[in-house]
Amino acid sequence: MYDIAAFGRMIADQGRMGAYSRALQRSIAHGSTVLDIGAGTGILSLLACQYGARKVYAVEPSSAIAIAEEAARANGFADRMECIQALSTDIRLPQKADVIISDLRGVLPLFQQHLPSIVDARSRLLQPGGNLIPKRDVLWAAVVETPRSYDQLMKPWERERFDLNMAAASQIVKNVWKEGRVTPDQLLTKPYRWATIDYLTVESPDVSGEMTFQVERPGTGHGFVLWFDAVLEEGIGFSNAPGQPELIYSSGFFPWSSPVTLDPADAVSVDLRADLVGSDYVWSWETRVHGKDPGQLKAHFRQSTFFGAPLSPTQLRKRGGRYQPALREDGE
Amino acid sequence: MYDIAAFGRMIADQGRMGAYSRALQRSIAHGSTVLDIGAGTGILSLLACQYGARKVYAVEPSSAIAIAEEAARANGFADRMECIQALSTDIRLPQKADVIISDLRGVLPLFQQHLPSIVDARSRLLQPGGNLIPKRDVLWAAVVETPRSYDQLMKPWERERFDLNMAAASQIVKNVWKEGRVTPDQLLTKPYRWATIDYLTVESPDVSGEMTFQVERPGTGHGFVLWFDAVLEEGIGFSNAPGQPELIYSSGFFPWSSPVTLDPADAVSVDLRADLVGSDYVWSWETRVHGKDPGQLKAHFRQSTFFGAPLSPTQLRKRGGRYQPALREDGE
Repeated sequence: MYDIAAFGRMIADQGRMGAYSRALQRSIAHGSTVLDIGAGTGILSLLACQYGARKVYAVEPSSAIAIAEEAARANGFADRMECIQALSTDIRLPQKADVIISDLRGVLPLFQQHLPSIVDARSRLLQPGGNLIPKRDVLWAAVVETPRSYDQLMKPWERERFDLNMAAASQIVKNVWKEGRVTPDQLLTKPYRWATIDYLTVESPDVSGEMTFQVERPGTGHGFVLWFDAVLEEGIGFSNAPGQPELIYSSGFFPWSSPVTLDPADAVSVDLRADLVGSDYVWSWETRVHGKDPGQLKAHFRQSTFFGAPLSPTQLRKRGGRYQPALREDGE
Repeated sequence: MYDIAAFGRMIADQGRMGAYSRALQRSIAHGSTVLDIGAGTGILSLLACQYGARKVYAVEPSSAIAIAEEAARANGFADRMECIQALSTDIRLPQKADVIISDLRGVLPLFQQHLPSIVDARSRLLQPGGNLIPKRDVLWAAVVETPRSYDQLMKPWERERFDLNMAAASQIVKNVWKEGRVTPDQLLTKPYRWATIDYLTVESPDVSGEMTFQVERPGTGHGFVLWFDAVLEEGIGFSNAPGQPELIYSSGFFPWSSPVTLDPADAVSVDLRADLVGSDYVWSWETRVHGKDPGQLKAHFRQSTFFGAPLSPTQLRKRGGRYQPALREDGE
């Protein structure tokens, strides 16, 4: 849904916007042709004009593009900035761009059609040797102690609340990841670099890899957090890492099936994968916690957002148009 | 979108859930037939069974209904609780309900198809003399001093930020209302009771009425807040009024086109209307601020969410399938 206040919050985020405007300023030469994918209200396109672009294509599927168009006129850029209400994958351009700018991320860069859109735009709409902003995103993870976030997810479904068995909901909530902000002192391990997405070379939208963590202090592990460092141009970027100045994005909290008491000698391995299926990612994380004795497996969880949505055979039957329940013979 | 964690937050909200469970406990007699509209994960339906209902129809359009169905089995209510994945307006029932329970509100009760759904269910699916939970919602407003919420909306679009004229965005953001939590000391006037929605008698989804406020202390008015007191059963309810224990819903903040310096003798009149158009409400608020001298009009604003979304003639042209920009003759 269109939400002007949400666009405002993104623009007000100085960590993000400051980095984008510096990256634009550096990469746009006088006379550049620029493609802005997911232009929103057009702020980056307008800056590109201000920095000397000869032609800017602002491409945005939502009606926010009408704001971009009006702002282009109000700022005297109407002849250089062309606003197109569309998905970038649906357009063709009469000339290739010297620079493509985008921020199609969600909380994490592995989000909806972000990567396929970049791969498509790079191959069809970018000059050979042209520039992409962002250049790359580096994804990091660490094991985290975060009882508050964990309880917020799990507590509502505990038996004690209403003397009801809500295990059906617990099972689902254990297989979702959520936005969650943590501080560096909540980390129980050093960060591990899970993956680097280099936008100039990436082909597949899927990412997978195993991470190993050494526990650094005693505590209770509730799962891990995932975050990214964005490199827009060399030396220009931002990060939603714990401890960094607060951005509009927090990081991703991946809960474990149950909390695990961790000791400094423990090793945690997480096999994490993100597979784009249809319009969004399926995330899977398999966790093993090894104690200090050889062969001691303290915990083993297999979780996936594939199990994070309810499925039921009867729902399909009852879903149809105007299902009418029937009374049984006893009138129930 | 389906979000199990959001259902969890609603259930964890003790102000809301405690009131609903007490109201159910009081109104459900042994042997009652109950209809739960927007049942979600089925928590109220399950409680209705626990309190002695003979038959409960849990109606929910999202796939969360599969959780309700599994929980019905897990709690031994499968023979009494029937789960139907549908909108209530699309179902028929073999028997009318003694009690209809629902919480189809958003931040405010005037939300999407809430009222038409209740009116429809009351006339088609409720026993004559049957009971509705909630019984009524009372809507209140007060003029508020809230520089932080106001700036959050307006500042991103100020010229100073990037030396760009973003008036196109400012115009839109002044015509939206947003969730916003304020404290009692931020109110500049006494609350005014704008409207009461009595679910047993309401027919039209539209609400309008003029409010007059007397300014009580000097300050800067940034707009008004709107909240509601929910009466589920007489004496049982909850409220998102400023100063009440925090609920999952905050209140609604309706900004003014510009801040107004207010003095104790000033009178503020607001003509507020909410009209259901299609699938959601258009809110309009016309504000007049009268100073202490007779005839002195300190401010006059006409705002409406009708102007809170961008419109452009060219967007329609460029929206079509595969619009291709053309180069002009000079190659631009």
